[in-house]
Amino acid sequence: MSIKLSQRGHDIPASPIRKLVPFADGAKARGTHVYHLNIGQPDIATPEQMWDRIKNYQETVLAYGPSNGLLEFRQGLAEYYAKYGVSVTPAEIIVTTGGSEALLFAMLATCDPGDEVLVPEPFYANYNGFAVQASITVVPVTAKAEDGFRLPPKELFVEKITDKTKAILISNPGNPTGVVYTREELEVLAELALEHDLYIVADEVYREFVYDGEKYTSIMTIPGLDQHAIIADSISKRFSACGARVGNIVSKNKELMGSIMRFAQARLCPPTLEQIGAIGALTVPESYFEGVLTEYQKRRDIIFNGISKIPGALCCQPKGAFYVIAKLPIDDGDAFAEWMLSHFEMDGATVMVAPAAGFYATPGLGKDECRLAYVLNTEDLEKAMEILAAGVEAYNAR
Amino acid sequence: MSIKLSQRGHDIPASPIRKLVPFADGAKARGTHVYHLNIGQPDIATPEQMWDRIKNYQETVLAYGPSNGLLEFRQGLAEYYAKYGVSVTPAEIIVTTGGSEALLFAMLATCDPGDEVLVPEPFYANYNGFAVQASITVVPVTAKAEDGFRLPPKELFVEKITDKTKAILISNPGNPTGVVYTREELEVLAELALEHDLYIVADEVYREFVYDGEKYTSIMTIPGLDQHAIIADSISKRFSACGARVGNIVSKNKELMGSIMRFAQARLCPPTLEQIGAIGALTVPESYFEGVLTEYQKRRDIIFNGISKIPGALCCQPKGAFYVIAKLPIDDGDAFAEWMLSHFEMDGATVMVAPAAGFYATPGLGKDECRLAYVLNTEDLEKAMEILAAGVEAYNAR
Repeated sequence: MSIKLSQRGHDIPASPIRKLVPFADGAKARGTHVYHLNIGQPDIATPEQMWDRIKNYQETVLAYGPSNGLLEFRQGLAEYYAKYGVSVTPAEIIVTTGGSEALLFAMLATCDPGDEVLVPEPFYANYNGFAVQASITVVPVTAKAEDGFRLPPKELFVEKITDKTKAILISNPGNPTGVVYTREELEVLAELALEHDLYIVADEVYREFVYDGEKYTSIMTIPGLDQHAIIADSISKRFSACGARVGNIVSKNKELMGSIMRFAQARLCPPTLEQIGAIGALTVPESYFEGVLTEYQKRRDIIFNGISKIPGALCCQPKGAFYVIAKLPIDDGDAFAEWMLSHFEMDGATVMVAPAAGFYATPGLGKDECRLAYVLNTEDLEKAMEILAAGVEAYNAR
Repeated sequence: MSIKLSQRGHDIPASPIRKLVPFADGAKARGTHVYHLNIGQPDIATPEQMWDRIKNYQETVLAYGPSNGLLEFRQGLAEYYAKYGVSVTPAEIIVTTGGSEALLFAMLATCDPGDEVLVPEPFYANYNGFAVQASITVVPVTAKAEDGFRLPPKELFVEKITDKTKAILISNPGNPTGVVYTREELEVLAELALEHDLYIVADEVYREFVYDGEKYTSIMTIPGLDQHAIIADSISKRFSACGARVGNIVSKNKELMGSIMRFAQARLCPPTLEQIGAIGALTVPESYFEGVLTEYQKRRDIIFNGISKIPGALCCQPKGAFYVIAKLPIDDGDAFAEWMLSHFEMDGATVMVAPAAGFYATPGLGKDECRLAYVLNTEDLEKAMEILAAGVEAYNAR
């Protein structure tokens, strides 16, 4: 008899964003520079206001904070949401350890083991990981590249609703699709929620990153959803502070928030010092985001043009967030991504991409796709796209 | 039809350590000072070496770190464990967001929903919360105050083993009991693990806090347990850095660690900056702990003597950690703790304790007990014990 893992311990998928890190480390050990298009780690400086608060913190003990987060931070968040038409009190906000924990808590409080969550696919790959942790099933509703990854029609959602369906989970602006849902699309989701008594969990961490004059609409601005709408949020992308692990959950459903507070108490509190920093980050002027947005729009154009130049490749022009799902003329995204790190370099450099199959729940989908994050400066990104094009050619000629 | 919480959303217990915070806030709002004996938040200064690293951090982007934690920190941890006779490599360590996440990951990787974990009770209350998150059952094996909360006899464990039992979870040195298990006791657990193919998850976050010349022994120094032993750890208590949310898990079981790495990838990484600080904290000289230990032993004596002076109260003298389970002459610990915050004060102050029922899984146990943390300076602690004694008297005379 030898000791066994749990079934979920086997089932938990490796993250397509991170599982190839050992191959990237191998490339770096050989002296090859790796352009990281695999992960949404922006190169934008974390705001000085955040660093200043952290570096001027005067307490001698790095102590536990409240389980629902520091009041001053939650007050700042409530003011921040008001700018987007979301009217909430600090009591309707619970600070979490990254957006990751916000998503996990939302799943735990709305679903029991075996329950189902409808998710337009492709979706943020780690939803699969959180679903395994929560022992729930992600039921995909496939969005199509040829439709610009817009919200699938209502009837496709209805078809998949069972008595185990408890929630719909969306990412808006969309990771990895770049889609920004219109108010009308969110109203369709609201109808589904109200007609079938489902929660809507909206992962809105990319709200600042919207291009070409499109408009982000929060799920919490759609009337009638006070009991149904949950925002999962994070400062990671907004303030280029991914390593802070500061996120939050927002809901007007008191019973739900009471439950999430108890989940939050079990883990005591989110990181204290980095919440202190986040309070500072909330004071950055609007001009910070204008500069950031102009920069990302340039990057978006470079990556979109770069993909368009690869024979046989295609993608939708992303309108939000900072990712694109690229269909490439390759047999297998996993093999290709690994090969790029293990066997290819151009001018001493290679590119790391995230194979897209892990962003789908339907087996077989996404096999010839990769997710690219456009989080590098324009010069690096131009170079990375040249390397990617050469890599695709060499991969198919190998 | 109105939207429902999940069953586990209902089941998740409020933390007995934190659920009375609104009453404490009420007392403070009335101008009453609250001595916090409810929570293990030490008043000892976080080491300068930790603050220095954080405040001198020169990166401009607060970026994601590796999912298993910064290599330099894991290297430092491996050296640290060697001092306790635990020989591990950095690859056998995964950094977690606090000891909380280490415990949750251990449960997820070893148990499926419905599985059982044997836990000597009383135990750290939040094990109940993590068990609800993981949809597993805590099966208590009752340790008795009159036996000094020593490990219950082997046959009591064997009686409770079913085909759903996957692990034994212990806290050593013990929160809330203050017990420090001997090598012989750990060998009994090892026999159980090997005979019944169970993991042993040892929460060893208090290893520095051992008094009266007793000796802490790590589960990982017991031969034969390479595949079975898992340490859940944290810097929170060791370096008085509870708000950092930096913990870690240790195991030599490669398959298990591979699985936990995938759980870790889903949530991306533990807090970056506070790991940087923790690298600094690992450099504190042994003398730091000697000073801390002398101080805690004084505190332990004050709290033990204080309880002994309350007519009808009793407790075991704790030998490790910084808690004590006190049996008080009261009808109900929850009611008493709330009453102390809502209706009692002496010289403008009151005391917050953690009602102990939440530290048991067997219904009815711990009802007339409270957990007290001795984490205040000796003067405050003397005062707090006077107030507690007066409070017990007034509560029973009300």
